[in-house]
Amino acid sequence: MSRPGTSTASGPASGTSRRGLLALGGAALAGTAAVGLAGCSDDDKPAKAAAPADRVPFYGTHQAGIATPAQDRLAFATYDLTVSGTVAENRAALRQLLQQWTAAAAAMTQGKTVPGDNDNPAAPPADTGEAYGLSPANLTITLGLGGSLFDKRFGLAGKRPAALADLPKLPPENLDPERSGGDLAIQACADDPIVAFHVIRNLARIGRGTVVMRWSQLGFGNATGNGGGKETPRNLMGFKDGTRNIPGDDTSLMDGHVWVGDETDQPWMRGGSYLVARRIRMRIEAWDRDFLQDQENVFGRAKYTGAPLTGAKETDQPDFAKKAAGGDPVIPADAHIRLAAHENNGGVRILRRGYSFTDGIVPATGELDAGLFFIAYQKDPRTQFIALQRKLGAHDALNEYIQHVGSGLFACPPGARAAGTGWAQELLA
Amino acid sequence: MSRPGTSTASGPASGTSRRGLLALGGAALAGTAAVGLAGCSDDDKPAKAAAPADRVPFYGTHQAGIATPAQDRLAFATYDLTVSGTVAENRAALRQLLQQWTAAAAAMTQGKTVPGDNDNPAAPPADTGEAYGLSPANLTITLGLGGSLFDKRFGLAGKRPAALADLPKLPPENLDPERSGGDLAIQACADDPIVAFHVIRNLARIGRGTVVMRWSQLGFGNATGNGGGKETPRNLMGFKDGTRNIPGDDTSLMDGHVWVGDETDQPWMRGGSYLVARRIRMRIEAWDRDFLQDQENVFGRAKYTGAPLTGAKETDQPDFAKKAAGGDPVIPADAHIRLAAHENNGGVRILRRGYSFTDGIVPATGELDAGLFFIAYQKDPRTQFIALQRKLGAHDALNEYIQHVGSGLFACPPGARAAGTGWAQELLA
Repeated sequence: MSRPGTSTASGPASGTSRRGLLALGGAALAGTAAVGLAGCSDDDKPAKAAAPADRVPFYGTHQAGIATPAQDRLAFATYDLTVSGTVAENRAALRQLLQQWTAAAAAMTQGKTVPGDNDNPAAPPADTGEAYGLSPANLTITLGLGGSLFDKRFGLAGKRPAALADLPKLPPENLDPERSGGDLAIQACADDPIVAFHVIRNLARIGRGTVVMRWSQLGFGNATGNGGGKETPRNLMGFKDGTRNIPGDDTSLMDGHVWVGDETDQPWMRGGSYLVARRIRMRIEAWDRDFLQDQENVFGRAKYTGAPLTGAKETDQPDFAKKAAGGDPVIPADAHIRLAAHENNGGVRILRRGYSFTDGIVPATGELDAGLFFIAYQKDPRTQFIALQRKLGAHDALNEYIQHVGSGLFACPPGARAAGTGWAQELLA
Repeated sequence: MSRPGTSTASGPASGTSRRGLLALGGAALAGTAAVGLAGCSDDDKPAKAAAPADRVPFYGTHQAGIATPAQDRLAFATYDLTVSGTVAENRAALRQLLQQWTAAAAAMTQGKTVPGDNDNPAAPPADTGEAYGLSPANLTITLGLGGSLFDKRFGLAGKRPAALADLPKLPPENLDPERSGGDLAIQACADDPIVAFHVIRNLARIGRGTVVMRWSQLGFGNATGNGGGKETPRNLMGFKDGTRNIPGDDTSLMDGHVWVGDETDQPWMRGGSYLVARRIRMRIEAWDRDFLQDQENVFGRAKYTGAPLTGAKETDQPDFAKKAAGGDPVIPADAHIRLAAHENNGGVRILRRGYSFTDGIVPATGELDAGLFFIAYQKDPRTQFIALQRKLGAHDALNEYIQHVGSGLFACPPGARAAGTGWAQELLA
């Protein structure tokens, strides 16, 4: 549709700070300063002290959004490539897409508009606009590559890491293909849901003709200013979730369990990580009918304090050997924390980054469609997530109340090192 | 499921402050103070200065959540009664339900747990627990009664207000019955999505055996701390939405357009209001292809500044008579703000309280299922929403990009006046 009219808009120039332009009246100081710093920072520890408190550096050895402390909101989406040319053409299209996405992601994480023309009255604006004037709210954008990307279309079969083998069937799962898989995945996390949604929408738009969105999932963690990230968030079962998680700033644990190192068969993955996503529906109504003591036995923790059943405080280490007067273990044999604990799994750990979701009701049953969108990062899912889930799937008391209904496994390449470089550049070179 | 075990939990006593117990170590001072104040406040202006900054008084002349400044997050749900007894039995069940809901709502808005036993190991906790330890985050809970409640089941047909007549067909609508209607509606708004969701979940649980949830919708506005409520939020089309809305603290406008007064045929509705909810899907992909100038002509405002096309600042009053050099009006004849303006509708105004939603993609088309969950409050929908929507539906340039896909009309009774009274007490007396 097109028709005559008078535009009085003075739009933001491409690549300038949203907040700078709109709130500070044109002086894009904050954005400029942040870019200067981010461009110089490519070591493991982003230069957080110097950057404004609402933005996370984009460029670096690792992608942001993995070690970064979990923000409040998640917008997750997967996309399928729609190319139908020769291998060379398809690969060029993929390379161009990832370069455009990288540039757009770098801009959005620093609070800028999507690069392109945003103030031409006779063209669609490059940026869709719903985040104008908002802070980036600690936005991180993390790319993952699905196993299906390594098929014949792009000539990448020889570069598929062994660790990216398709996930085996992992009962009790009942996967919906419309909520599983995808050639590419984007995890956008921010302290503002509009800022996170803006990412998956604009990346779809940038890729029009090359990609289509396959599925998406919104999630929420702990609210900005409500707990302030100091307390462990609770899941929708009312229990604290993440007490024994790997701290993102523990370099030793991150190197040992999360970042891909020299052990990989594919050098382009060094410094990357593997993302497992599982949409886990909770049987909320059944759970809510369960006795408090049973709920606590299922997890192995007290509901209110989060303390292990053998302790008094949330941070107390669980004592898996401790027995009650009758001889039964205080933390039951099928308790979730016993089965998942690294002490009971040969030291295996994963970095979890899950978000709660509530997507209305299931029409067929009238029950809530709600639960945990589980995200985990690791060096190798074969020995980490898959091994843990096989055990949990067989024995976990929690299985009575949950079902895995969506799934994805993605190889997250290392970070783009500096402006002008694209995601997965080494893979596509 | 039931099995032996040892509970070490010391749960919060019923009715005590979540935050007080958990963060302050048992002294529920904040909650107690707020309740004391709220109990004394039944005039139009809640005693905000004295109450803690994170809670809104529940009791009063009007229900909270209408004049209250819009919080960041919405959880909206409708419920159907499942009673099948005599009229007297059904009405007693409805009365009991609303008394329980009122008591639970009063507690949750003040940051307390759902009343009942929360620390008995051999019973399900009364509160589902996901909001333990969180501030109420300015939670308001607003009840609406659907037209279907006034059928033969409860003997209420004679008490149905004329203003609660079923909405007529309002093209361009394409309503999904699974997202429309309901005997009861709950609008829960808070600055934390977990706190808002906790409400619609726990009210469903309290009502088990009497009500089932019919449909629900989550929405988001502007983020806590990101804009801080000082800027007008933008909708998913990238435009500021609400610039000319009725300010909730303008008593004269609220009395003139929103609160039901002596003109009603049903005295039990005095001090109440009528809620219209419309799930408005946006054709995001088509909109994103439209030129900036066209987008601005559709709304009649500049995209970045929000100024009317005849002005320079967002707050400038639109000049609907102003003509461009060629003789055409600067604000086009079919611009949304021209058609909706009270100046062009005999002074008719409504109080809007909408939230953006993004619910994944529509599987059939791969397009985003996103838009505006429109909520409006008014004295009489027949002369307000319906009249406005008939005009907009026929002429609004925006119609090319939107479709109404869900709908509800609910009579919101006045506020519960003090602890011990229930919602809609006068109706059910």
